[in-house]
Amino acid sequence: MNRIVLLRHGESIWNQENRFTGWTDVGLTEKGLAEAKAAGQLLKQEGYEFDVAFTSVLRRAIKTLWTVLEEMDRMWIPIHRSWRLNERHYGALQGLNKAETAERFGDAQVKTWRRAYDVAPPPLADGDLRLETGDPRYADLDPAASPKTECLKDTVARFLPYWHATIAPAVRSGQRVVIAAHGNSLRALVKYLDGISDSDIVELNIPTGQPLVYELDNQLKPIRHYYLGDEEAIKASMQAVANQGKATGTP
Amino acid sequence: MNRIVLLRHGESIWNQENRFTGWTDVGLTEKGLAEAKAAGQLLKQEGYEFDVAFTSVLRRAIKTLWTVLEEMDRMWIPIHRSWRLNERHYGALQGLNKAETAERFGDAQVKTWRRAYDVAPPPLADGDLRLETGDPRYADLDPAASPKTECLKDTVARFLPYWHATIAPAVRSGQRVVIAAHGNSLRALVKYLDGISDSDIVELNIPTGQPLVYELDNQLKPIRHYYLGDEEAIKASMQAVANQGKATGTP
Repeated sequence: MNRIVLLRHGESIWNQENRFTGWTDVGLTEKGLAEAKAAGQLLKQEGYEFDVAFTSVLRRAIKTLWTVLEEMDRMWIPIHRSWRLNERHYGALQGLNKAETAERFGDAQVKTWRRAYDVAPPPLADGDLRLETGDPRYADLDPAASPKTECLKDTVARFLPYWHATIAPAVRSGQRVVIAAHGNSLRALVKYLDGISDSDIVELNIPTGQPLVYELDNQLKPIRHYYLGDEEAIKASMQAVANQGKATGTP
Repeated sequence: MNRIVLLRHGESIWNQENRFTGWTDVGLTEKGLAEAKAAGQLLKQEGYEFDVAFTSVLRRAIKTLWTVLEEMDRMWIPIHRSWRLNERHYGALQGLNKAETAERFGDAQVKTWRRAYDVAPPPLADGDLRLETGDPRYADLDPAASPKTECLKDTVARFLPYWHATIAPAVRSGQRVVIAAHGNSLRALVKYLDGISDSDIVELNIPTGQPLVYELDNQLKPIRHYYLGDEEAIKASMQAVANQGKATGTP
Protein backbone atom coordinates (compact mmCIF):
# COMPACT_ATOMS: atom_id res chain seq x y z
CA MET A 1 0.00 0.00 0.00
CA ASN A 2 1.24 3.46 -0.95
CA ARG A 3 0.17 6.56 0.93
CA ILE A 4 0.49 10.09 -0.43
CA VAL A 5 -0.45 13.33 1.25
CA LEU A 6 -1.92 16.27 -0.66
CA LEU A 7 -1.86 19.70 0.95
CA ARG A 8 -3.45 22.87 -0.35
CA HIS A 9 -1.48 25.95 0.76
CA GLY A 10 -2.77 27.96 3.71
CA GLU A 11 -4.69 31.21 3.26
CA SER A 12 -2.94 33.64 0.93
CA ILE A 13 -3.23 37.42 0.88
CA TRP A 14 -5.53 37.20 -2.12
CA ASN A 15 -7.62 34.41 -0.55
CA GLN A 16 -8.12 36.89 2.28
CA GLU A 17 -8.94 39.72 -0.15
CA ASN A 18 -11.21 37.31 -2.09
CA ARG A 19 -9.34 37.89 -5.36
CA PHE A 20 -8.77 35.49 -8.24
CA THR A 21 -5.11 34.59 -7.93
CA GLY A 22 -4.11 31.94 -10.48
CA TRP A 23 -0.43 32.31 -11.32
CA THR A 24 -0.06 35.61 -9.44
CA ASP A 25 2.67 35.01 -6.86
CA VAL A 26 1.19 36.26 -3.59
CA GLY A 27 2.36 35.26 -0.12
CA LEU A 28 0.58 33.63 2.81
CA THR A 29 -1.28 35.61 5.47
CA GLU A 30 -0.45 35.10 9.17
CA LYS A 31 -3.48 32.79 9.25
CA GLY A 32 -2.13 30.87 6.26
CA LEU A 33 1.22 30.45 7.98
CA ALA A 34 -0.54 29.25 11.14
CA GLU A 35 -2.54 26.74 9.04
CA ALA A 36 0.70 25.41 7.57
CA LYS A 37 2.27 25.09 11.03
CA ALA A 38 -0.80 23.27 12.32
CA ALA A 39 -0.70 20.89 9.33
CA GLY A 40 2.97 20.13 10.03
CA GLN A 41 2.31 19.51 13.72
CA LEU A 42 -0.65 17.26 12.88
CA LEU A 43 1.37 15.21 10.38
CA LYS A 44 4.18 14.81 12.90
CA GLN A 45 1.80 13.87 15.71
CA GLU A 46 0.10 11.28 13.46
CA GLY A 47 3.48 9.71 12.69
CA TYR A 48 3.72 10.66 9.02
CA GLU A 49 7.13 10.61 7.34
CA PHE A 50 8.12 11.85 3.90
CA ASP A 51 11.08 11.00 1.68
CA VAL A 52 10.43 13.52 -1.06
CA ALA A 53 8.20 16.56 -1.64
CA PHE A 54 6.68 18.14 -4.72
CA THR A 55 5.40 21.68 -5.05
CA SER A 56 4.71 24.46 -7.53
CA VAL A 57 6.91 27.46 -8.32
CA LEU A 58 4.57 29.78 -6.39
CA ARG A 59 5.60 31.08 -2.99
CA ARG A 60 2.35 30.33 -1.18
CA ALA A 61 2.76 26.60 -1.88
CA ILE A 62 6.53 26.55 -1.29
CA LYS A 63 6.21 28.44 2.02
CA THR A 64 3.45 26.07 3.13
CA LEU A 65 5.70 23.11 2.35
CA TRP A 66 8.76 24.66 4.03
CA THR A 67 6.72 25.39 7.15
CA VAL A 68 5.35 21.83 7.27
CA LEU A 69 8.82 20.32 6.83
CA GLU A 70 10.27 22.61 9.49
CA GLU A 71 7.58 21.51 11.97
CA MET A 72 8.26 17.86 11.07
CA ASP A 73 12.06 18.28 11.32
CA ARG A 74 12.34 17.13 7.70
CA MET A 75 13.86 20.25 6.12
CA TRP A 76 16.56 18.04 4.60
CA ILE A 77 14.34 15.97 2.26
CA PRO A 78 14.55 16.78 -1.47
CA ILE A 79 11.93 19.18 -2.83
CA HIS A 80 11.01 19.26 -6.52
CA ARG A 81 9.31 22.35 -7.91
CA SER A 82 7.39 22.51 -11.18
CA TRP A 83 5.09 25.05 -12.83
CA ARG A 84 2.94 22.01 -13.71
CA LEU A 85 1.78 22.01 -10.07
CA ASN A 86 0.81 25.70 -10.21
CA GLU A 87 -2.71 26.86 -9.53
CA ARG A 88 -5.03 26.99 -12.54
CA HIS A 89 -4.27 30.11 -14.58
CA TYR A 90 -7.23 32.44 -14.09
CA GLY A 91 -6.67 34.56 -17.20
CA ALA A 92 -8.09 38.07 -17.21
CA LEU A 93 -9.81 37.45 -13.86
CA GLN A 94 -6.43 37.44 -12.06
CA GLY A 95 -6.44 40.25 -9.51
CA LEU A 96 -10.22 40.85 -9.60
CA ASN A 97 -12.35 40.54 -6.48
CA LYS A 98 -14.51 37.42 -6.63
CA ALA A 99 -17.63 38.97 -5.06
CA GLU A 100 -17.39 42.12 -7.23
CA THR A 101 -16.95 39.95 -10.30
CA ALA A 102 -20.06 37.98 -9.27
CA GLU A 103 -22.05 41.21 -8.83
CA ARG A 104 -21.01 42.30 -12.30
CA PHE A 105 -21.36 39.03 -14.22
CA GLY A 106 -23.72 37.11 -11.94
CA ASP A 107 -23.12 34.16 -9.59
CA ALA A 108 -23.84 31.63 -12.33
CA GLN A 109 -21.21 32.99 -14.75
CA VAL A 110 -18.59 33.21 -12.00
CA LYS A 111 -19.38 29.69 -10.81
CA THR A 112 -18.95 28.52 -14.41
CA TRP A 113 -15.57 30.27 -14.67
CA ARG A 114 -14.51 28.93 -11.29
CA ARG A 115 -15.76 25.40 -11.51
CA ALA A 116 -16.90 24.33 -15.00
CA TYR A 117 -14.55 21.68 -16.28
CA ASP A 118 -14.04 23.00 -19.79
CA VAL A 119 -14.93 26.71 -19.76
CA ALA A 120 -11.93 28.98 -19.28
CA PRO A 121 -12.18 32.60 -18.10
CA PRO A 122 -11.34 35.29 -20.70
CA PRO A 123 -7.62 35.08 -21.57
CA LEU A 124 -5.00 37.69 -20.79
CA ALA A 125 -4.38 39.81 -23.89
CA ASP A 126 -0.98 39.95 -25.58
CA GLY A 127 1.14 42.50 -23.79
CA ASP A 128 -0.89 42.30 -20.56
CA LEU A 129 1.48 43.06 -17.71
CA ARG A 130 0.02 40.13 -15.79
CA LEU A 131 1.58 37.70 -18.27
CA GLU A 132 4.67 35.77 -17.11
CA THR A 133 6.82 37.13 -19.97
CA GLY A 134 10.40 37.53 -18.76
CA ASP A 135 9.83 35.82 -15.42
CA PRO A 136 12.94 33.62 -15.07
CA ARG A 137 11.05 30.87 -13.28
CA TYR A 138 9.25 30.17 -16.56
CA ALA A 139 12.36 30.48 -18.73
CA ASP A 140 12.16 26.79 -19.68
CA LEU A 141 8.50 27.11 -20.63
CA ASP A 142 7.90 27.70 -24.34
CA PRO A 143 6.20 31.14 -24.52
CA ALA A 144 3.76 29.71 -27.06
CA ALA A 145 2.76 27.02 -24.53
CA SER A 146 2.57 29.43 -21.60
CA PRO A 147 -1.10 29.67 -20.58
CA LYS A 148 -3.06 32.92 -20.90
CA THR A 149 -6.05 31.32 -19.20
CA GLU A 150 -7.04 27.80 -18.22
CA CYS A 151 -10.12 25.74 -17.51
CA LEU A 152 -9.67 22.80 -15.16
CA LYS A 153 -9.37 20.52 -18.19
CA ASP A 154 -6.28 22.50 -19.24
CA THR A 155 -4.85 22.21 -15.73
CA VAL A 156 -5.39 18.44 -15.80
CA ALA A 157 -3.66 18.28 -19.19
CA ARG A 158 -0.51 20.03 -17.98
CA PHE A 159 -0.46 18.45 -14.51
CA LEU A 160 -0.81 14.79 -15.51
CA PRO A 161 2.44 14.52 -17.53
CA TYR A 162 4.32 15.51 -14.37
CA TRP A 163 2.34 13.00 -12.30
CA HIS A 164 3.10 10.18 -14.74
CA ALA A 165 6.75 11.06 -15.39
CA THR A 166 7.91 12.15 -11.95
CA ILE A 167 5.55 11.77 -9.00
CA ALA A 168 3.98 8.37 -9.76
CA PRO A 169 7.40 6.68 -10.28
CA ALA A 170 8.53 8.06 -6.90
CA VAL A 171 5.41 6.63 -5.25
CA ARG A 172 5.89 3.28 -7.01
CA SER A 173 9.49 3.09 -5.86
CA GLY A 174 8.25 3.20 -2.26
CA GLN A 175 9.05 6.81 -1.50
CA ARG A 176 6.67 8.56 0.86
CA VAL A 177 5.40 11.58 -1.04
CA VAL A 178 3.87 14.90 -0.01
CA ILE A 179 2.46 17.30 -2.61
CA ALA A 180 1.98 20.92 -1.51
CA ALA A 181 0.01 22.68 -4.20
CA HIS A 182 -3.16 24.60 -5.01
CA GLY A 183 -6.93 24.17 -4.97
CA ASN A 184 -7.20 23.43 -8.66
CA SER A 185 -3.99 21.52 -9.32
CA LEU A 186 -5.02 19.21 -6.47
CA ARG A 187 -8.57 18.97 -7.87
CA ALA A 188 -6.96 17.94 -11.16
CA LEU A 189 -5.09 15.13 -9.41
CA VAL A 190 -8.08 13.99 -7.35
CA LYS A 191 -10.28 13.96 -10.48
CA TYR A 192 -7.74 11.70 -12.18
CA LEU A 193 -7.12 9.39 -9.22
CA ASP A 194 -10.79 8.88 -8.34
CA GLY A 195 -12.07 9.00 -11.91
CA ILE A 196 -14.50 11.81 -11.04
CA SER A 197 -16.73 12.88 -13.94
CA ASP A 198 -16.44 16.27 -15.61
CA SER A 199 -19.76 17.29 -14.06
CA ASP A 200 -19.19 15.95 -10.53
CA ILE A 201 -15.81 17.69 -10.18
CA VAL A 202 -17.67 21.04 -10.16
CA GLU A 203 -18.89 20.44 -6.62
CA LEU A 204 -15.59 19.21 -5.19
CA ASN A 205 -13.78 21.74 -3.01
CA ILE A 206 -10.47 21.17 -1.26
CA PRO A 207 -9.94 23.10 1.98
CA THR A 208 -6.73 25.05 2.70
CA GLY A 209 -4.13 23.63 5.04
CA GLN A 210 -5.85 20.26 5.71
CA PRO A 211 -3.69 17.23 4.88
CA LEU A 212 -5.61 14.96 2.48
CA VAL A 213 -4.35 11.37 2.56
CA TYR A 214 -4.75 8.98 -0.38
CA GLU A 215 -4.01 5.31 0.07
CA LEU A 216 -3.17 3.76 -3.29
CA ASP A 217 -2.80 0.16 -4.40
CA ASN A 218 0.13 -1.12 -6.49
CA GLN A 219 -1.50 0.21 -9.68
CA LEU A 220 -1.85 3.55 -7.86
CA LYS A 221 -5.62 3.19 -7.79
CA PRO A 222 -7.15 4.76 -4.66
CA ILE A 223 -8.21 2.36 -1.89
CA ARG A 224 -9.55 5.19 0.26
CA HIS A 225 -8.91 8.80 1.14
CA TYR A 226 -9.48 10.96 4.22
CA TYR A 227 -8.54 14.28 5.73
CA LEU A 228 -6.42 14.41 8.87
CA GLY A 229 -7.67 16.64 11.64
CA ASP A 230 -10.88 18.07 13.03
CA GLU A 231 -13.94 17.19 10.92
CA GLU A 232 -15.92 20.35 11.71
CA ALA A 233 -13.00 22.62 10.81
CA ILE A 234 -12.59 20.80 7.49
CA LYS A 235 -16.30 21.16 6.62
CA ALA A 236 -16.25 24.86 7.51
CA SER A 237 -13.15 25.39 5.38
CA MET A 238 -14.69 23.58 2.38
CA GLN A 239 -17.85 25.66 2.66
CA ALA A 240 -15.81 28.87 2.84
CA VAL A 241 -14.09 27.93 -0.43
CA ALA A 242 -17.45 27.17 -2.07
CA ASN A 243 -18.84 30.56 -0.96
CA GLN A 244 -15.98 32.71 -2.27
CA GLY A 245 -17.49 33.19 -5.71
CA LYS A 246 -20.85 34.43 -4.49
CA ALA A 247 -21.94 38.07 -4.52
CA THR A 248 -23.22 37.88 -0.94
CA GLY A 249 -21.85 36.04 2.05
CA THR A 250 -24.85 33.68 2.34
CA PRO A 251 -23.65 30.41 3.86
CA MET B 1 33.72 35.13 -15.57
CA ASN B 2 31.82 32.98 -13.06
CA ARG B 3 30.68 34.34 -9.75
CA ILE B 4 29.67 32.18 -6.79
CA VAL B 5 28.44 33.29 -3.39
CA LEU B 6 29.35 31.46 -0.19
CA LEU B 7 27.28 32.07 2.89
CA ARG B 8 27.90 30.77 6.39
CA HIS B 9 24.64 30.27 8.30
CA GLY B 10 23.59 32.93 10.80
CA GLU B 11 24.09 32.49 14.54
CA SER B 12 22.78 29.17 15.83
CA ILE B 13 21.58 28.35 19.32
CA TRP B 14 24.88 26.60 20.04
CA ASN B 15 26.91 29.46 18.55
CA GLN B 16 25.11 31.60 21.12
CA GLU B 17 25.78 29.09 23.90
CA ASN B 18 29.40 28.80 22.67
CA ARG B 19 29.14 25.03 22.22
CA PHE B 20 30.89 22.80 19.69
CA THR B 21 28.13 21.87 17.26
CA GLY B 22 29.48 19.84 14.35
CA TRP B 23 26.75 17.58 13.00
CA THR B 24 24.34 18.35 15.84
CA ASP B 25 21.22 19.73 14.18
CA VAL B 26 20.47 22.93 16.12
CA GLY B 27 18.37 25.81 14.85
CA LEU B 28 19.11 29.49 14.32
CA THR B 29 18.65 32.12 17.03
CA GLU B 30 16.53 35.22 16.35
CA LYS B 31 19.83 37.00 15.67
CA GLY B 32 20.80 34.27 13.21
CA LEU B 33 17.49 34.61 11.42
CA ALA B 34 17.97 38.39 11.26
CA GLU B 35 21.48 37.87 9.84
CA ALA B 36 20.04 35.62 7.13
CA LYS B 37 17.34 38.18 6.28
CA ALA B 38 19.93 40.95 6.09
CA ALA B 39 22.10 38.82 3.81
CA GLY B 40 19.14 38.20 1.51
CA GLN B 41 18.26 41.90 1.40
CA LEU B 42 21.88 42.82 0.69
CA LEU B 43 22.16 40.29 -2.15
CA LYS B 44 18.91 41.56 -3.66
CA GLN B 45 19.94 45.19 -3.31
CA GLU B 46 23.30 44.45 -4.96
CA GLY B 47 21.51 42.83 -7.90
CA TYR B 48 22.61 39.24 -7.32
CA GLU B 49 20.62 36.46 -8.97
CA PHE B 50 20.88 32.70 -8.46
CA ASP B 51 19.83 29.80 -10.64
CA VAL B 52 20.62 27.01 -8.20
CA ALA B 53 21.50 26.62 -4.53
CA PHE B 54 23.50 24.09 -2.56
CA THR B 55 23.33 23.45 1.15
CA SER B 56 23.93 20.84 3.83
CA VAL B 57 21.36 18.58 5.49
CA LEU B 58 21.49 20.65 8.69
CA ARG B 59 18.63 22.98 9.53
CA ARG B 60 20.73 26.03 10.40
CA ALA B 61 22.15 26.14 6.87
CA ILE B 62 18.86 25.23 5.15
CA LYS B 63 16.92 27.84 7.13
CA THR B 64 19.54 30.46 6.30
CA LEU B 65 19.22 29.60 2.61
CA TRP B 66 15.40 29.56 2.69
CA THR B 67 15.37 32.96 4.38
CA VAL B 68 17.78 34.44 1.84
CA LEU B 69 15.77 33.06 -1.09
CA GLU B 70 12.52 34.34 0.41
CA GLU B 71 14.00 37.85 0.75
CA MET B 72 15.25 37.66 -2.85
CA ASP B 73 11.91 36.31 -4.17
CA ARG B 74 13.74 33.23 -5.47
CA MET B 75 12.04 30.50 -3.45
CA TRP B 76 11.38 28.63 -6.68
CA ILE B 77 15.01 27.87 -7.64
CA PRO B 78 16.21 24.28 -7.17
CA ILE B 79 18.03 23.51 -3.91
CA HIS B 80 20.38 20.55 -3.60
CA ARG B 81 21.20 19.24 -0.15
CA SER B 82 24.14 17.02 0.74
CA TRP B 83 25.77 15.83 3.96
CA ARG B 84 29.06 16.59 2.18
CA LEU B 85 28.39 20.28 2.85
CA ASN B 86 27.80 19.65 6.57
CA GLU B 87 29.89 21.34 9.22
CA ARG B 88 33.05 19.52 10.24
CA HIS B 89 32.16 16.65 12.60
CA TYR B 90 33.44 17.70 16.02
CA GLY B 91 33.59 14.21 17.54
CA ALA B 92 33.40 13.93 21.32
CA LEU B 93 33.51 17.72 21.66
CA GLN B 94 29.97 18.04 20.22
CA GLY B 95 27.77 19.67 22.85
CA LEU B 96 30.62 20.89 25.07
CA ASN B 97 31.05 24.57 25.88
CA LYS B 98 34.08 26.01 24.06
CA ALA B 99 35.28 28.24 26.90
CA GLU B 100 34.87 25.47 29.50
CA THR B 101 36.73 23.07 27.24
CA ALA B 102 39.51 25.67 26.92
CA GLU B 103 39.69 26.05 30.71
CA ARG B 104 40.00 22.29 31.09
CA PHE B 105 42.40 21.49 28.24
CA GLY B 106 44.03 24.89 27.67
CA ASP B 107 43.60 27.45 24.88
CA ALA B 108 46.38 25.88 22.82
CA GLN B 109 44.82 22.38 22.77
CA VAL B 110 41.41 23.77 21.90
CA LYS B 111 42.84 25.95 19.16
CA THR B 112 44.55 22.86 17.77
CA TRP B 113 41.27 20.91 17.81
CA ARG B 114 39.40 23.83 16.28
CA ARG B 115 41.87 24.94 13.68
CA ALA B 116 44.77 22.54 13.08
CA TYR B 117 44.48 21.11 9.61
CA ASP B 118 45.13 17.46 10.42
CA VAL B 119 44.40 16.97 14.12
CA ALA B 120 40.89 15.70 14.83
CA PRO B 121 39.19 16.00 18.23
CA PRO B 122 38.64 12.73 20.14
CA PRO B 123 36.11 10.57 18.24
CA LEU B 124 32.65 9.63 19.43
CA ALA B 125 32.74 6.12 20.92
CA ASP B 126 30.69 3.27 19.43
CA GLY B 127 27.19 3.46 20.85
CA ASP B 128 27.47 7.16 21.73
CA LEU B 129 23.98 8.63 21.48
CA ARG B 130 25.43 11.59 19.59
CA LEU B 131 26.21 9.34 16.59
CA GLU B 132 23.92 9.64 13.55
CA THR B 133 22.96 5.94 13.69
CA GLY B 134 19.37 5.53 12.47
CA ASP B 135 18.98 9.14 11.34
CA PRO B 136 17.15 8.79 8.00
CA ARG B 137 18.92 11.77 6.46
CA TYR B 138 22.13 9.69 6.52
CA ALA B 139 20.48 6.49 5.29
CA ASP B 140 22.50 6.58 2.05
CA LEU B 141 25.75 7.08 3.95
CA ASP B 142 27.67 3.86 4.59
CA PRO B 143 27.82 3.54 8.41
CA ALA B 144 31.49 2.56 8.11
CA ALA B 145 32.17 5.84 6.27
CA SER B 146 30.07 7.95 8.63
CA PRO B 147 32.49 10.20 10.52
CA LYS B 148 32.96 9.90 14.29
CA THR B 149 35.22 12.94 14.28
CA GLU B 150 36.93 15.03 11.62
CA CYS B 151 39.88 17.35 11.21
CA LEU B 152 39.60 19.96 8.46
CA LYS B 153 41.60 17.66 6.19
CA ASP B 154 38.81 15.09 6.52
CA THR B 155 36.19 17.72 5.76
CA VAL B 156 38.09 18.76 2.64
CA ALA B 157 38.28 15.10 1.58
CA ARG B 158 34.52 14.57 1.78
CA PHE B 159 33.54 18.01 0.50
CA LEU B 160 35.66 18.11 -2.66
CA PRO B 161 34.05 15.11 -4.44
CA TYR B 162 30.74 17.00 -4.28
CA TRP B 163 32.37 20.18 -5.53
CA HIS B 164 33.93 18.39 -8.49
CA ALA B 165 30.95 16.20 -9.37
CA THR B 166 28.06 18.57 -8.77
CA ILE B 167 28.78 22.19 -7.93
CA ALA B 168 31.69 22.92 -10.29
CA PRO B 169 29.81 21.54 -13.36
CA ALA B 170 26.85 23.80 -12.49
CA VAL B 171 29.19 26.82 -12.29
CA ARG B 172 30.89 25.84 -15.56
CA SER B 173 27.52 25.54 -17.30
CA GLY B 174 26.87 29.20 -16.51
CA GLN B 175 24.50 28.73 -13.60
CA ARG B 176 24.69 31.34 -10.87
CA VAL B 177 25.41 29.41 -7.69
CA VAL B 178 24.92 30.13 -3.99
CA ILE B 179 26.29 27.78 -1.33
CA ALA B 180 24.80 28.09 2.14
CA ALA B 181 26.92 26.05 4.50
CA HIS B 182 29.10 26.08 7.59
CA GLY B 183 32.28 27.67 8.90
CA ASN B 184 34.45 24.65 8.21
CA SER B 185 32.87 23.27 5.04
CA LEU B 186 33.32 26.76 3.56
CA ARG B 187 36.90 26.94 4.89
CA ALA B 188 37.48 23.63 3.10
CA LEU B 189 36.26 25.12 -0.17
CA VAL B 190 38.20 28.38 0.23
CA LYS B 191 41.37 26.44 1.05
CA TYR B 192 40.97 24.47 -2.15
CA LEU B 193 40.02 27.41 -4.38
CA ASP B 194 42.78 29.74 -3.15
CA GLY B 195 45.38 27.02 -2.63
CA ILE B 196 45.86 28.06 1.01
CA SER B 197 48.56 26.08 2.81
CA ASP B 198 47.79 23.67 5.65
CA SER B 199 49.38 26.10 8.11
CA ASP B 200 47.84 29.33 6.80
CA ILE B 201 44.29 27.96 6.87
CA VAL B 202 44.51 27.89 10.70
CA GLU B 203 44.14 31.68 10.86
CA LEU B 204 41.30 31.97 8.35
CA ASN B 205 37.89 32.63 9.88
CA ILE B 206 34.64 33.04 7.98
CA PRO B 207 32.03 35.31 9.61
CA THR B 208 28.37 34.24 9.93
CA GLY B 209 25.75 35.66 7.60
CA GLN B 210 28.13 37.72 5.40
CA PRO B 211 27.94 36.86 1.68
CA LEU B 212 31.43 35.99 0.42
CA VAL B 213 31.76 36.42 -3.34
CA TYR B 214 34.30 34.49 -5.43
CA GLU B 215 34.91 35.49 -9.03
CA LEU B 216 36.33 32.52 -10.93
CA ASP B 217 37.90 32.22 -14.36
CA ASN B 218 36.97 29.55 -16.90
CA GLN B 219 39.21 27.02 -15.12
CA LEU B 220 37.38 27.99 -11.91
CA LYS B 221 40.54 29.58 -10.53
CA PRO B 222 39.77 32.60 -8.31
CA ILE B 223 40.31 36.04 -9.85
CA ARG B 224 39.35 37.80 -6.64
CA HIS B 225 37.04 37.51 -3.67
CA TYR B 226 35.31 39.95 -1.36
CA TYR B 227 32.60 40.18 1.27
CA LEU B 228 29.44 42.12 0.57
CA GLY B 229 28.33 44.57 3.22
CA ASP B 230 29.74 46.70 5.98
CA GLU B 231 33.49 46.20 6.47
CA GLU B 232 33.54 46.94 10.21
CA ALA B 233 30.70 44.47 10.89
CA ILE B 234 32.56 41.79 8.95
CA LYS B 235 35.80 42.35 10.89
CA ALA B 236 33.96 42.26 14.22
CA SER B 237 32.19 39.03 13.22
CA MET B 238 35.48 37.38 12.16
CA GLN B 239 37.11 38.36 15.45
CA ALA B 240 34.14 36.97 17.40
CA VAL B 241 34.59 33.61 15.64
CA ALA B 242 38.32 33.62 16.42
CA ASN B 243 37.64 34.33 20.12
CA GLN B 244 35.10 31.57 20.68
CA GLY B 245 37.64 28.95 21.66
CA LYS B 246 39.34 31.06 24.30
CA ALA B 247 38.87 30.60 28.02
CA THR B 248 38.36 34.33 28.58
CA GLY B 249 36.57 36.89 26.49
CA THR B 250 39.73 38.93 25.73
CA PRO B 251 39.27 40.66 22.40
